[in-house]
Amino acid sequence: MRPPGALRYSGRSGPAPAGGALPGREMPFFDHINGGPPLPEAAEAMRAWLEVPANPQMEHGFGRRAHMALEAARAQVAALIGARPADVVLGGTGSEVNNLAVKGFLKANRRKGRRIVLSAVEHPSVDRACRRMAADGYEPAVVGVDREGRVDPAALAAGLTPGTALVCLQLANPEVGTLQPVAEAAELARAAGAAVMVDAVLAAGRAPVDVKALGADLLTLSSPGVWGPPGAAALYLRPGVRIQPEVDGGVQEGGRRGGLENLPALVGFGAACHHLAADLAAHLEHLEALAQRMRGHLARLTGVRLTGPAAGRAAGHVSLLVSGAEGQSLLALLDEEGVAASSGSFCGAQAMKASPVLTAMGYPPAEAVSGVVFSFGPGNSAAEVDQGADALRKCMERIRGALGRGAPG
Amino acid sequence: MRPPGALRYSGRSGPAPAGGALPGREMPFFDHINGGPPLPEAAEAMRAWLEVPANPQMEHGFGRRAHMALEAARAQVAALIGARPADVVLGGTGSEVNNLAVKGFLKANRRKGRRIVLSAVEHPSVDRACRRMAADGYEPAVVGVDREGRVDPAALAAGLTPGTALVCLQLANPEVGTLQPVAEAAELARAAGAAVMVDAVLAAGRAPVDVKALGADLLTLSSPGVWGPPGAAALYLRPGVRIQPEVDGGVQEGGRRGGLENLPALVGFGAACHHLAADLAAHLEHLEALAQRMRGHLARLTGVRLTGPAAGRAAGHVSLLVSGAEGQSLLALLDEEGVAASSGSFCGAQAMKASPVLTAMGYPPAEAVSGVVFSFGPGNSAAEVDQGADALRKCMERIRGALGRGAPG
Repeated sequence: MRPPGALRYSGRSGPAPAGGALPGREMPFFDHINGGPPLPEAAEAMRAWLEVPANPQMEHGFGRRAHMALEAARAQVAALIGARPADVVLGGTGSEVNNLAVKGFLKANRRKGRRIVLSAVEHPSVDRACRRMAADGYEPAVVGVDREGRVDPAALAAGLTPGTALVCLQLANPEVGTLQPVAEAAELARAAGAAVMVDAVLAAGRAPVDVKALGADLLTLSSPGVWGPPGAAALYLRPGVRIQPEVDGGVQEGGRRGGLENLPALVGFGAACHHLAADLAAHLEHLEALAQRMRGHLARLTGVRLTGPAAGRAAGHVSLLVSGAEGQSLLALLDEEGVAASSGSFCGAQAMKASPVLTAMGYPPAEAVSGVVFSFGPGNSAAEVDQGADALRKCMERIRGALGRGAPG
Repeated sequence: MRPPGALRYSGRSGPAPAGGALPGREMPFFDHINGGPPLPEAAEAMRAWLEVPANPQMEHGFGRRAHMALEAARAQVAALIGARPADVVLGGTGSEVNNLAVKGFLKANRRKGRRIVLSAVEHPSVDRACRRMAADGYEPAVVGVDREGRVDPAALAAGLTPGTALVCLQLANPEVGTLQPVAEAAELARAAGAAVMVDAVLAAGRAPVDVKALGADLLTLSSPGVWGPPGAAALYLRPGVRIQPEVDGGVQEGGRRGGLENLPALVGFGAACHHLAADLAAHLEHLEALAQRMRGHLARLTGVRLTGPAAGRAAGHVSLLVSGAEGQSLLALLDEEGVAASSGSFCGAQAMKASPVLTAMGYPPAEAVSGVVFSFGPGNSAAEVDQGADALRKCMERIRGALGRGAPG
């Protein structure tokens, strides 16, 4: 498969390129945290719904078929996270369901208190949703993280006052891969009478996610996060947890998210969840083998420091700082070499320079601009990792001026 | 093309069925107001994006291509409504952008006043969004409609107090097809210092929509409304009109709608707009010829009354009441005959019995449950209309007990 035009990307299980920078070679795509190519299974599920009426609310034959497909997709999503289908609200984007979880929960549970506790490394869609609620009388309290990006449960416990309504804790961080001690935090929160909202948008597909084991009251995941198509996401609600809709007017999703269901994307989302759940261990192993291979290459490059924890991180996620290189510049050079990577969370990528996540982890501003993330997907191969590491080495040499002019490798 | 399984629907320009109720015949699909089959051009545009990375915010080659496709789609959507691309915010559903228009405008313009004026026949996503804002101190004031579903501009003018922030007026009604005198209403509203939000979700694709001619400050349309795929919609904002985002956190859409753009759906939406705009007159003429043909058939059936206006209505939209028949029962029988129709707005279809729209038009509750809508699309043919009218006749006979048992036509 090719995107429109001349670009290519590495297919799911295509052959590794034979040599180096040959014309027409596959381009390593290492930006899976920001939406990789959907799985062939997901695309195939979508194709069946591209030219047919697909409104699950209609009571004619087409509507009934759409309704069946919608509920099948819901069951597939629920199965990936150990939930009942009835406890899953389907939506459009990770940011949407994160906003719905935070705002919808607080608006429907105004008597629970006015304090929101969140970590310093939450995704902007959670962080800003909490700040937005401040205008409504809520008090967001931010709990810091350590050098590896991890929240200290003791610090979290100290922040839990009796008036705490909600604790927001990301399961895995897009910029540094850190898995948070969510189960432990949830236990503390529950003891303090607070509900726990878990942003698993990055984690789903990169770690086992079980809503019961985590103790989540609300948990979000997105379709692109699990190699499904854009335009689909989900919010798990523990039985009994109520939310107010953010989109009013429709009966869809039990009145919790109005608007026509995006059936093509939702069936793709379901198919992706189903595919991953069928052998999650093998999937995670593949991702982590690629990450380990990349870390091996990076260990031989001077001036590269890994960020985030060595263990307890999202599979297939390698984050690093390069001394003396601004992250965006390095990414631009990598792009010239045909390697797609990123600096972390795309939602803020164009809006800010120094990363708030790296800053919260204690990196000084001068270093917090040099973050790079290689994130792998089911379609990547070991050969691509080798190619990518080689490209990084070249880019670093170019930046440091060590590459002689007129002698491009 | 066929949907999964045994059902068929009438293709865009397929041959008309040769006979009557033959096994395997095409099923007339007359529920285009609730999402008809996307145009082949829309599906084709989507196919190019099903298996490739598609995040327009990323600064690598794949991201740049996605960004170009996103902006091309935005330009196509803008062109259909006579807007500049920069004035179009892309979103996920008609309900979402209706909520965003109402709530986002009011929240960003708190000094403009507390009164909201809306018609009695607004879509639930507009109506409930206005009611939701009542909890925030706003005062929704509902202006009634006449027997044809039309707002009287004089009544609207009388409702415009100095503290009116926003006037919400639908361009075309899904249940009765009525086009509202939006341009006239907008002039009155502007004179009173109020902004005008126009819900053109049904109208776009069924009437010419020009944001300047209408005088709209905010205007919404959806992809399924113009025979694009589900999962895409748009909000036009007159230059200078500010809104607060409902989904916080992302830089997408100039910070006015956070969350990963649904590129496959958006390119389909753009392609559908482009296709319709290329010869809108011919498209509307085709829809209206089908509607007129159906009205001709209906005139020969006893007990059928058309609802809404004879002129000044959405193209391809036929709405009726059938004496002595509850709408849902009649629709179920039509479905058995292989004809897909609806009762009007799907968002409330399962939630209510008597139609608030028909009630507002002065129909007594006993009649307001018998509404049926035949809505046509580019793929429908005159032969299908004949087949549909014949099916309706049979269903009416069955309901009235006039059909002899054991002799099913």
